[in-house]
Amino acid sequence: MTTGHVFIATSLDGYIARPDGDIGWLLERDDPAEDHGYADFIADKDMIVMGRGSYEKVLTMGDWFYDRPVLVLSRQLARQPVPAHLQGKVRFSDTTPAQAFAELAAQGVRRVYVDGGQLIQSCLRDGLIADMVVTTVPVLIGAGRPLFGALPRDIGLALESSRHFPSGLVQSTWRVLR
Amino acid sequence: MTTGHVFIATSLDGYIARPDGDIGWLLERDDPAEDHGYADFIADKDMIVMGRGSYEKVLTMGDWFYDRPVLVLSRQLARQPVPAHLQGKVRFSDTTPAQAFAELAAQGVRRVYVDGGQLIQSCLRDGLIADMVVTTVPVLIGAGRPLFGALPRDIGLALESSRHFPSGLVQSTWRVLR
Repeated sequence: MTTGHVFIATSLDGYIARPDGDIGWLLERDDPAEDHGYADFIADKDMIVMGRGSYEKVLTMGDWFYDRPVLVLSRQLARQPVPAHLQGKVRFSDTTPAQAFAELAAQGVRRVYVDGGQLIQSCLRDGLIADMVVTTVPVLIGAGRPLFGALPRDIGLALESSRHFPSGLVQSTWRVLR
Repeated sequence: MTTGHVFIATSLDGYIARPDGDIGWLLERDDPAEDHGYADFIADKDMIVMGRGSYEKVLTMGDWFYDRPVLVLSRQLARQPVPAHLQGKVRFSDTTPAQAFAELAAQGVRRVYVDGGQLIQSCLRDGLIADMVVTTVPVLIGAGRPLFGALPRDIGLALESSRHFPSGLVQSTWRVLR
């Protein structure tokens, strides 16, 4: 079985980006001297699954920095070829998250980093997320793209751990209860 | 000068109540054996200011449990008398939060507990909140009354402290930066 795992930062009011996608408010509060645990998080993940929004955002940020295979779920991108410099690193697919996870399971992929607000919401609704590392950034931005969305029913969580950093970030790990 | 102080719980997706006001999801995750710090919080507050929604919610919860004077800001309630059993404990007023704080300052009231989502949002917009104790409850409820709302500009915060409880609650104290 393939499980989804989230590692993401939000403003205290729950946004992962401004309405136009800007994350400057996040980057300017990131202290590069602090280890927020991404390397530890990614170490046991086999793959990364993201939506089009996250993929296009990453493209604007310069060099491709993922050292895991990336699957982009997007009907729109699935009609296009993967850019030459990302061949072998990125695949596009037009399947649903549940279909994608079933195919990954058949391929022996076990632990997947799920990135992007819309995709995380879909995967939560479909029961594909096992745990989430949510880092709260000390700012209210008032509007933007929310991390969480509508749900068919409550999702109970168990707190695995929580820590905070001198920069003011609070990072909590939540396990999704079945 | 009078300062506003917040002490409130939200779901991980940022709601203080379901769309119909229900907080059963919160109460059922409250471990009465844990001290979440309300007594310490209220100890240095002179007064409580709330909106109509919070006031009416508290009325449904049985005995009046506040041991501080309560000011309810509501144009609608301000046209009515205070119920007999709350005379001397509760006042209604139709002023804006900023006017109310100015009047309280003139009366020597210094530290005010601000309760209720709509009122907290108004007070944040008007720069009346000094700090917030926000307790995150381990559940996603998918919809409801949000703690935070639209803002004319970003509000930067400083993390004062953060702690977590065996029940899975994460409680962080944020100071509002001017």
